[in-house]
Amino acid sequence: MAGNTIGQIFRLTTYGESHGAGLGGIVDGCPAGLRLDLDAVQHELDRRRPGQSELVTPRDEKDRINMLSGLFEGVTTGAPLAFHIPSQDADSSAYDHLKDTFRPSHADFTYSAKYNVRDHRGGGRASARETVSRVAAGAIARQLLQPVGVEVCAYVERVQDIAMHSPPQFYSRSNVDAHPMRCPSPETAERMAQRVEQVREVGDTVGGAIVLVARGVPAGWGEPVFDKLSSELARALWSIPAVKAMEIGSGFSGTLMLGSQHNDAFIPGEAGSSELAQTRTNQSGGIQGGLSNGQDLIVRIGFKPVATIRATQETVDSSGKAATVEGKGRHDPCVLSRAVPIVEAMALLVLADMSLRNKSSHVE
Amino acid sequence: MAGNTIGQIFRLTTYGESHGAGLGGIVDGCPAGLRLDLDAVQHELDRRRPGQSELVTPRDEKDRINMLSGLFEGVTTGAPLAFHIPSQDADSSAYDHLKDTFRPSHADFTYSAKYNVRDHRGGGRASARETVSRVAAGAIARQLLQPVGVEVCAYVERVQDIAMHSPPQFYSRSNVDAHPMRCPSPETAERMAQRVEQVREVGDTVGGAIVLVARGVPAGWGEPVFDKLSSELARALWSIPAVKAMEIGSGFSGTLMLGSQHNDAFIPGEAGSSELAQTRTNQSGGIQGGLSNGQDLIVRIGFKPVATIRATQETVDSSGKAATVEGKGRHDPCVLSRAVPIVEAMALLVLADMSLRNKSSHVE
Amino acid sequence: MAGNTIGQIFRLTTYGESHGAGLGGIVDGCPAGLRLDLDAVQHELDRRRPGQSELVTPRDEKDRINMLSGLFEGVTTGAPLAFHIPSQDADSSAYDHLKDTFRPSHADFTYSAKYNVRDHRGGGRASARETVSRVAAGAIARQLLQPVGVEVCAYVERVQDIAMHSPPQFYSRSNVDAHPMRCPSPETAERMAQRVEQVREVGDTVGGAIVLVARGVPAGWGEPVFDKLSSELARALWSIPAVKAMEIGSGFSGTLMLGSQHNDAFIPGEAGSSELAQTRTNQSGGIQGGLSNGQDLIVRIGFKPVATIRATQETVDSSGKAATVEGKGRHDPCVLSRAVPIVEAMALLVLADMSLRNKSSHVE
Amino acid sequence: MAGNTIGQIFRLTTYGESHGAGLGGIVDGCPAGLRLDLDAVQHELDRRRPGQSELVTPRDEKDRINMLSGLFEGVTTGAPLAFHIPSQDADSSAYDHLKDTFRPSHADFTYSAKYNVRDHRGGGRASARETVSRVAAGAIARQLLQPVGVEVCAYVERVQDIAMHSPPQFYSRSNVDAHPMRCPSPETAERMAQRVEQVREVGDTVGGAIVLVARGVPAGWGEPVFDKLSSELARALWSIPAVKAMEIGSGFSGTLMLGSQHNDAFIPGEAGSSELAQTRTNQSGGIQGGLSNGQDLIVRIGFKPVATIRATQETVDSSGKAATVEGKGRHDPCVLSRAVPIVEAMALLVLADMSLRNKSSHVE
Repeated sequence: MAGNTIGQIFRLTTYGESHGAGLGGIVDGCPAGLRLDLDAVQHELDRRRPGQSELVTPRDEKDRINMLSGLFEGVTTGAPLAFHIPSQDADSSAYDHLKDTFRPSHADFTYSAKYNVRDHRGGGRASARETVSRVAAGAIARQLLQPVGVEVCAYVERVQDIAMHSPPQFYSRSNVDAHPMRCPSPETAERMAQRVEQVREVGDTVGGAIVLVARGVPAGWGEPVFDKLSSELARALWSIPAVKAMEIGSGFSGTLMLGSQHNDAFIPGEAGSSELAQTRTNQSGGIQGGLSNGQDLIVRIGFKPVATIRATQETVDSSGKAATVEGKGRHDPCVLSRAVPIVEAMALLVLADMSLRNKSSHVE
Repeated sequence: MAGNTIGQIFRLTTYGESHGAGLGGIVDGCPAGLRLDLDAVQHELDRRRPGQSELVTPRDEKDRINMLSGLFEGVTTGAPLAFHIPSQDADSSAYDHLKDTFRPSHADFTYSAKYNVRDHRGGGRASARETVSRVAAGAIARQLLQPVGVEVCAYVERVQDIAMHSPPQFYSRSNVDAHPMRCPSPETAERMAQRVEQVREVGDTVGGAIVLVARGVPAGWGEPVFDKLSSELARALWSIPAVKAMEIGSGFSGTLMLGSQHNDAFIPGEAGSSELAQTRTNQSGGIQGGLSNGQDLIVRIGFKPVATIRATQETVDSSGKAATVEGKGRHDPCVLSRAVPIVEAMALLVLADMSLRNKSSHVE
Repeated sequence: MAGNTIGQIFRLTTYGESHGAGLGGIVDGCPAGLRLDLDAVQHELDRRRPGQSELVTPRDEKDRINMLSGLFEGVTTGAPLAFHIPSQDADSSAYDHLKDTFRPSHADFTYSAKYNVRDHRGGGRASARETVSRVAAGAIARQLLQPVGVEVCAYVERVQDIAMHSPPQFYSRSNVDAHPMRCPSPETAERMAQRVEQVREVGDTVGGAIVLVARGVPAGWGEPVFDKLSSELARALWSIPAVKAMEIGSGFSGTLMLGSQHNDAFIPGEAGSSELAQTRTNQSGGIQGGLSNGQDLIVRIGFKPVATIRATQETVDSSGKAATVEGKGRHDPCVLSRAVPIVEAMALLVLADMSLRNKSSHVE
Repeated sequence: MAGNTIGQIFRLTTYGESHGAGLGGIVDGCPAGLRLDLDAVQHELDRRRPGQSELVTPRDEKDRINMLSGLFEGVTTGAPLAFHIPSQDADSSAYDHLKDTFRPSHADFTYSAKYNVRDHRGGGRASARETVSRVAAGAIARQLLQPVGVEVCAYVERVQDIAMHSPPQFYSRSNVDAHPMRCPSPETAERMAQRVEQVREVGDTVGGAIVLVARGVPAGWGEPVFDKLSSELARALWSIPAVKAMEIGSGFSGTLMLGSQHNDAFIPGEAGSSELAQTRTNQSGGIQGGLSNGQDLIVRIGFKPVATIRATQETVDSSGKAATVEGKGRHDPCVLSRAVPIVEAMALLVLADMSLRNKSSHVE
C-alpha cells in the first residue's frame, strides 16, 4: 500500500535510504526447494555497484549481501528470504547545504510536500541506491526462472545520440559486459564512453536507452485485464529512477505502420519445439492481448540525464523564496551501464511472479 | 490476483466479455457522501461507444449503465458501487470461422495457451469492449476528484504521421470533442479524418498517439518506491489494448538532452497560490521522484494499428498446421478517438486511488 | 481494501444492500476448464433462502442467480464469474420509523458513525441478506474442490441450551437436511424446533452453535505466519453476522487439559492411503502450526440471538436524545439453520483459495 | 500472499526462524512525523522475552532491537521502518534427534508436507520466537494510536481451571505486570504461579485464557463486509501460536441468552463526550455490525497447553514408520504471561491499520 512492495506471489518489500544503516528487503513467496547460489546474487550486486570503472562514480560502496533467513543448508525453505546490505559511507555532511533548498528535478520537493518531514541527506528512498535491494531480489528470481528456461538480458543501446544500429536482440552477458558501457557493439560502446567522459569533464550528465530482451518465456504468462504482462512490466520498469519513456516491440515506430504491415503472421512452431505456433515477425514484442506469446520479449526504456550536475541552479528554499543550489562532490555522468542490472532485475521480478500466478490458470 | 482489479483503496473490479450477457464492474472504496451525477457517467460511456460518427464502427451498442448498489437518494453510502451494462448484439455466429484458427496479433493464441479453453467469439476479455466498465468507473473517479480541483483531459495528437504541432497542453472538452477525431486542432483533425477514411476503404487500420494532461494535481501524490505515480499511470495505461509506447514529460526526446538542459528550475509559487514552488519548465511532466510536483501531468501514449483487417492473413490452426484467416464484417479503421475517454478513465482511476492513499502520508 | 473482497487467488468481491436492486458478486481467479453445475449453485441459494420452513421468515425472496460472465458452453474460461441475484421485495416503507433512531445491537449506529450517511432501510450491507452472494460463490468453490476430494459440511449443534451429545463429526447433507433445523440428530432437532417456536411466539430470538467439518483436506494447506489456515478460517467465519465465538478442535475445553493429554500422537497413515501419518486423536481439529494436517477440520461457531425482536427498546435518536424503537413485521426467531450454508460457503471460499495458493509452495 | 504480511495500509512483513541469524520485519505505511520512543519498543520486547521470571524459560535471548531505516532525528519519515533482532543462541544440535521424526502437535509434520523441505532445528517460522517481530511492530502501532486516545491492555484471566472472578475490564499495565503471571488479581496470580510450578516439575504444560481490552476506540472503525473489525481481530489473534478459541463480548455465554436479554440498549453519550450514544450493557464487546461502537472492545482468547513436554511420545518417522520422540532441554510450562504482549501487539496492529483505512470512509 505504501508502495514498498512489488509482486503478488513472488513478492519483494524493500527498505533503506541512501544515508542510513543499510538497505535490504524481504522476498516472500519464493517456493521451497530452490538451491540458491549466493555468489551469483553477489555478482549482480557487483554489476550495479558504483566504482566498477572510470565511467561511473569512484566511490566504493562494496554492497555485501547478508542473508538473514529463509535458507537451510543452501536451499530455500519457503520462509521469507530477508537480506541486508550494510552501508559503509554514512557521512552526510556533504548534504548540509541542502537542508533548506530543493534540488531541481530531484525528489526533494515532492517528498517534502508528501511527508511534511524533510530528510535532506541525499535522496533518501528516492535515491538510486535503493535499487540495490531490487537487484538482489532479481538475482533470486533469475535462479527460480532458470530451470524453466527463461533468460533475461539488457544492454545500453544508446547514449544521448550515439546508438547501436542492430535491432533489439538477445546478447549473452559476456558480450554485454565485455565493455564497461554494457553496449554489446564494441565500437559504439567506445564512442559512448568518450561522450560520457566529455560530459563528466564539464560536470554535466547524459541519458539514453536500454533494451531488455527475455527469451524462453512460455506462451500464456500475464493476467488479463489490468495485470497484463505489458502492464506489470511497465509498472516495474517505470519504478526505476530517471525512466521517461518505454516501448514494447514496435513501439512508436509501429504507430506509423498500417495494420496489414504490423500484424505478426503465425507460422507453425519450430520443428521439435512444443510450441504450437511462432510468429514470422515480432512487432508485438512477445506480448499479444497482454500475455506472452512465446516469442522474445522486447522492451526499450528511455532514461533522462540524471539531475545531479555541477552547475549552480535556480531553486526555492523551504519558505518558498528564490535561492540557488550548487553542485558538489562526485556524481555519475551517465547511469545507463549501472542501470542494466536494475532493468534486468525488475523484469525478472515480474516474470517470476507471473510464472507462479500462471499456476492457477486452468484445472488439470 | 487474476488481474481484473485495479487500485488499492479506490478499487475497480470488472467482468464481462465481448459476446456475453453484458459487462460491468464494482467500484469499491469510493468514500460515502459523494452526490453522483449519473448522466455525466452515461455521457462518458457515450463518448466511448462505437457508432458516434462515420469514423468509427456503425454498430450501435447503446451501452446504458444500470447502477445496482451503493447509492441512496443519489449519494454514495460507502457500499460498493456495482454497475451493469447489458449487451445488445449477442450474435456470435460471425466468429464461427475462427473456431479453429488464431487471428494474427490478436489475443486468441495467447488466451488459448494460458487457459486451455477457447472461447472463439470475438476477443472475450481481451476485446476493447471490456473498457466500457473502466470508462464508467473513471467517470465516478472524476466526480470524486472534481472538488479537489483535479481535471483530466486527453486528445488525439497524431494519426499515423499526421500530427499536431503544438506541444502537449490542457484542452477543454469542448475543444477536444468539437471534431469527432477528438483532435483539438480542427485543421489537423480534418486531415486525420481523411486518412482514416482512406484506410477504411482499403480495409486496413492505423494507429497514432494520444496525449493525456491532468491539471490541479497537488504536489506529493504517488507512493514511493514501486507505486510511484509514474509506475501506476504506466501500469494503468499499458493495460489498454493496443498500447505500444509511452512517454512522461520530455520522453524519448529528453533522453537526448544534457542534464543541465533537462532540469526544471524551481521558482516561487504563483502569487496567491498555496504552492510553495513551481517549475520554470516541465520536462518532468509533473512527476519528480515518482510523486506529483504540482505542475501539469503530461503523458503521451502510442497506439498500434489495431489487428482486425480485411485482408486474408497467414496463421495456424489449433493443431498447429498452417492456415489462413479472412477478415469479415465491419471494423474500426482507427480506435484513437474512442480511446480518448478510456485513457482519461485510466488516469482518473489512478489519481482517485492516489488521492485516498495520500491521506495516510503523515500525522496531523 | 474497503472490505468487500475476500481471498488472494480465488477471490470474491460482493455488492448489494438489503433494500436495493439486487445482490451479487464477482469471483475472480477461478481456474479455467471447470464445468460448472449451476443447478447445484442454485440449490445452495435455496438452502439459505428464507421461507423454507415454518421455522424461518415466511417471506419468499426467491433468490434466482443470473450468471453474467465467465462461462462458455458451461465451462469456466478463466474470465471473472459475475452473478446477480435480483431482489423482489423492495418495499422499504416498513423502515420509515427507523429514519431517526438506531436499533439496539444492529449496525445502524456504527454505519452512521463511519459513513456519515444514513440509509435507514434495513441493514444495508450489514444485513444477513448480503450473505446470499457468499453462498453463490461458495457453491462454485465447492465444485473446484470436489475433484480434489475435499468435502465440507456444517450443522446446527445447539440452539440456546438444547444440544447434541455426539462429538463433532462429518454428516452427509441428507442427514443434515433431513430436518429443517439442520441438526442431524432427529430427536434434538425436534426439541430445537419447539424452542424456536416458543420463542417466535413471544417475539424473541435465540442463538446457538454450528459445527463445521471438512474432510479430505490434504496436509500442508494454509500459509504461515499471518495467513494460517486457522487465521483465514477465523477471518472468514467471523465475518458472518451474529458470530460471537469460535473454537478449533479442542477449543476452550482443550485449555483445561495438560499438554500430555492434549497432544495428538502420530501413527502411520492408513494402509492404502498416500498420507505418511495420521493422528490418534484430533484435539488439533486438523490444523497444526497453522497448516492442515490431513485430519478432519473441526470448527465450532457460536451465534448470538439476532437483534431484531418484537419488544419496544430503549435507544437514542440521531441527535443523541433518548428515544424508543418498536419491533415491527416478521423476523427470524433463530437464524442457525439458514446460517449452515453460509458457514459452509465461507469455509469453502477459504479452502479453494488455499488450494491455489499452495501451488507455489515448492519447486517441482 | 505467502502469509508473512499483515495489514492493508499499516502493514507488517516479518522474517526469521527460531534458529537463524535473527528475526525482524518491515513496517510499511506508518505515517511520517511520528516521534518514535525506541525505549518503549524495547520495553515491549523485554515483556515478551523468555527468562523474565522463574515461571518462564531461563534462556536469556536478550532481543535487542536494531532500527535499520525509516527514522530521521527520531521521527518517522514515511519510509519503511525496518528492524532486526539478532539471535544469540544459535546452537541447534539439541534438535539433531528430531531430524527424522515429527513432534506431536507441533508444525514439523505440516511444514514438511507443505514445503517438501525439512528444517528440523526448532520450530522454524512456526516457533513462538517469530512473534518477537510482531511485538516490535505492535509497539510502533501503539505510539501511532496513543494521540488518538486508544489504549490496549491484555492480561491472563485463567490458567487451566484457576480463573479470575471479575468480568473482563481494562487494567493498567502496572496492575497487570505487578505479578510475573500478568494476572491483575494478586491472589489468583499466586495460585496460577503455583500451578505452573507443579506442572513444570512433572515436565508438562498448561494453557488458559487471556483477555484483551481496548478503550478509546472511536465508533466506526472496521470495514464491512469481510474486513470487519471482528474479522480482522480474529485473523490477527488466531495467527498466534497455540490459540484454539476466541470470544468477543458475550461469547459462548451470549449464545444461551434471548435476544431481549442480549441487546445492548443505547443511552445518550456521556455528558461532555463527543459520542452521540453509549450502551447500557456491552454484550457486543464494542463491535456492532462489524464496526466499533465506541464502547470497550472485549476479546477472550483460549490457549492450548503448548506441545513441548518432557514425556516420550508416540510418533512416526519421515518414512512413515512408527517411532518415538523424547522431550529434551528446558521448556515453558505455560506461555500465557509471555503471550500477553503478543496479544496486545496483534490487536494494536489491527487497530492502527483500521485507523488509517477509516480516513477514506467519507468525503469531507
